[in-house]
Amino acid sequence: MTGQFAIALDAMGGDRAPEMVVKGANIARQRFPQVHFLFFGDEQRVKPLLDKYRALAKVSTIHHTDQMVKGEDKPSTALRTGRSSSMRLAIDAVQSGDAAGVVSAGNTGALMAMAKVVLKTLPGITRPAIASFFPTLKGESVMLDLGANVQCDADNLVQFAVMGNVFARTVLGVVSPTMGLLNVGSEDMKGHEALREASALLRDFKLPGSFHGFVEGDDIAKGTVDVVVTDGFTGNIALKSIEGTAKLYAEFMRATFKSSFLSKLGYLLARPALNALRLRTDPRRYNGAIFMGLNGIAVKSHGGTDALGFSNAIGVAADMIMHRALARITEDFGNTNTAAVSRPQAAEL
Amino acid sequence: MTGQFAIALDAMGGDRAPEMVVKGANIARQRFPQVHFLFFGDEQRVKPLLDKYRALAKVSTIHHTDQMVKGEDKPSTALRTGRSSSMRLAIDAVQSGDAAGVVSAGNTGALMAMAKVVLKTLPGITRPAIASFFPTLKGESVMLDLGANVQCDADNLVQFAVMGNVFARTVLGVVSPTMGLLNVGSEDMKGHEALREASALLRDFKLPGSFHGFVEGDDIAKGTVDVVVTDGFTGNIALKSIEGTAKLYAEFMRATFKSSFLSKLGYLLARPALNALRLRTDPRRYNGAIFMGLNGIAVKSHGGTDALGFSNAIGVAADMIMHRALARITEDFGNTNTAAVSRPQAAEL
Repeated sequence: MTGQFAIALDAMGGDRAPEMVVKGANIARQRFPQVHFLFFGDEQRVKPLLDKYRALAKVSTIHHTDQMVKGEDKPSTALRTGRSSSMRLAIDAVQSGDAAGVVSAGNTGALMAMAKVVLKTLPGITRPAIASFFPTLKGESVMLDLGANVQCDADNLVQFAVMGNVFARTVLGVVSPTMGLLNVGSEDMKGHEALREASALLRDFKLPGSFHGFVEGDDIAKGTVDVVVTDGFTGNIALKSIEGTAKLYAEFMRATFKSSFLSKLGYLLARPALNALRLRTDPRRYNGAIFMGLNGIAVKSHGGTDALGFSNAIGVAADMIMHRALARITEDFGNTNTAAVSRPQAAEL
Repeated sequence: MTGQFAIALDAMGGDRAPEMVVKGANIARQRFPQVHFLFFGDEQRVKPLLDKYRALAKVSTIHHTDQMVKGEDKPSTALRTGRSSSMRLAIDAVQSGDAAGVVSAGNTGALMAMAKVVLKTLPGITRPAIASFFPTLKGESVMLDLGANVQCDADNLVQFAVMGNVFARTVLGVVSPTMGLLNVGSEDMKGHEALREASALLRDFKLPGSFHGFVEGDDIAKGTVDVVVTDGFTGNIALKSIEGTAKLYAEFMRATFKSSFLSKLGYLLARPALNALRLRTDPRRYNGAIFMGLNGIAVKSHGGTDALGFSNAIGVAADMIMHRALARITEDFGNTNTAAVSRPQAAEL
């Protein structure tokens, strides 16, 4: 899609909403001039904010609702009682075709549940997965699932590989992504049954790029593969272990530079270089987890992020829309040659 | 145990053996003057090395064998054909009572298989687990299992908690350790069945210290609990994800300091502080994974470590021996009040 398109924003989701949402949209507007923004939320609060950004206001529409999903709402409660919430109406806009994608920094469980019910899964996909990307020694990689599915069978993992492959091509710009299955060793006999089965299936799979085989935990940061495929339990723990370690090292460095007069002086001298490093590893750059496998593009921003982080979540949605991510997933299933994955386009084979 | 005791060393295990083993024993000798060392390996290679350290030679005995387990040997092969190997004879010394523990930097799978067959598990323990410790924001924590058991039931996890608790008390010196189960969320309904069941069992368990509940991946580096309990699949991936991230940040920092003249100068000024940080996070400090739950103390050193790292693996074994780790595990099972874990000392209840 190269023309104009609309993105629906849950204006009320996130710790610093709606200010952060409007400000984030304004940053994204400069990067994506072809986007029209649909804000769902309290008009009395959103309008004065939009009026501050005249260029943004011109490409925006406000859809008023005074209901919203709370951070502590259970997914089932949100589904039952949140039909007029800002989050639900934003998702509905994707289903109706008014928007090409939705971005929310609200309650993750509620967003996932609502998006699943409203948008349904793509043909060929049994279960959607949460995907996100992060810095590595070689550049950037994507990992999925990060928590949507605690237990997965081989077919789920194969589907995640197809979806991760499309993410790498559309958001990270990798032409021919390498894919790996996260395991406790690289040898064929390692890990549990579902992993070994998925590995066998992926060896025969015709996708752009190539299947590397099993990768281990330390391969994630090494960037051994562009796409790390895993179940939601393992993926969530790996991602959070990585985030925790990154914070630990940042804290260790902070304490180190503060520990003496000379190290403080050293910090001042190295500051421009250290600031460049900070930008490179800034979590706001990697904000935007996408619910892949739905028949519609839905991106979850971190709840605590600021406007810059939120603009990057919008960027993830825009990249996927512009590069026809959903059509590519469906095409890839149509081009595969394994019978183990359900393929709606079998006639095309 | 406060008197003298012997530790059996696989003199031929590890990339830099036997030099690194002898030199490591010499470092450990200075910290643990009560230890006698039994070296198992090629006398022609070990003796000249020992002769360089007269004080060490005085407290050492060489047991000659010209066989050794190779790095690429399968555990089953090592078990079948390695009966006269340096690794096997060192383990046998623990079984016969000649040594109070064994340390090897050789083939992990072979060491685990041989140690299990020769030493057997402790009463109350169904499966041994691999435990190791690492730096956190608060100090040091232990995690287990790190790879011995790909799938675990609730009883296994409870047993790992008991063993990790003893590790924290004997090696890390924590009087009253807190324990957490690694999960994808802290709420009671999160995770799979075995985790929820183990959580319920641990709430009723009477151990020194307390059960914190579920912890997430980022709690590992935070040091939220002293003991992180998990299955071998998740634990291995979490540990390696952490190691990979630590290396990534070290590499990012290296590149940052090299990026300009000013940052190079800054590095020089901050170097003493940065060296102190390097020491604090030195992997050699955290060398020594223990096979917990065996009826004998068996420590696996990293294969690529140097003498300093190997001396720390000896230190882990020595700490556990001196603080009666095995007896404590058995005692803790005797003092528990849950029927879900097999307890050989039920009569003591």
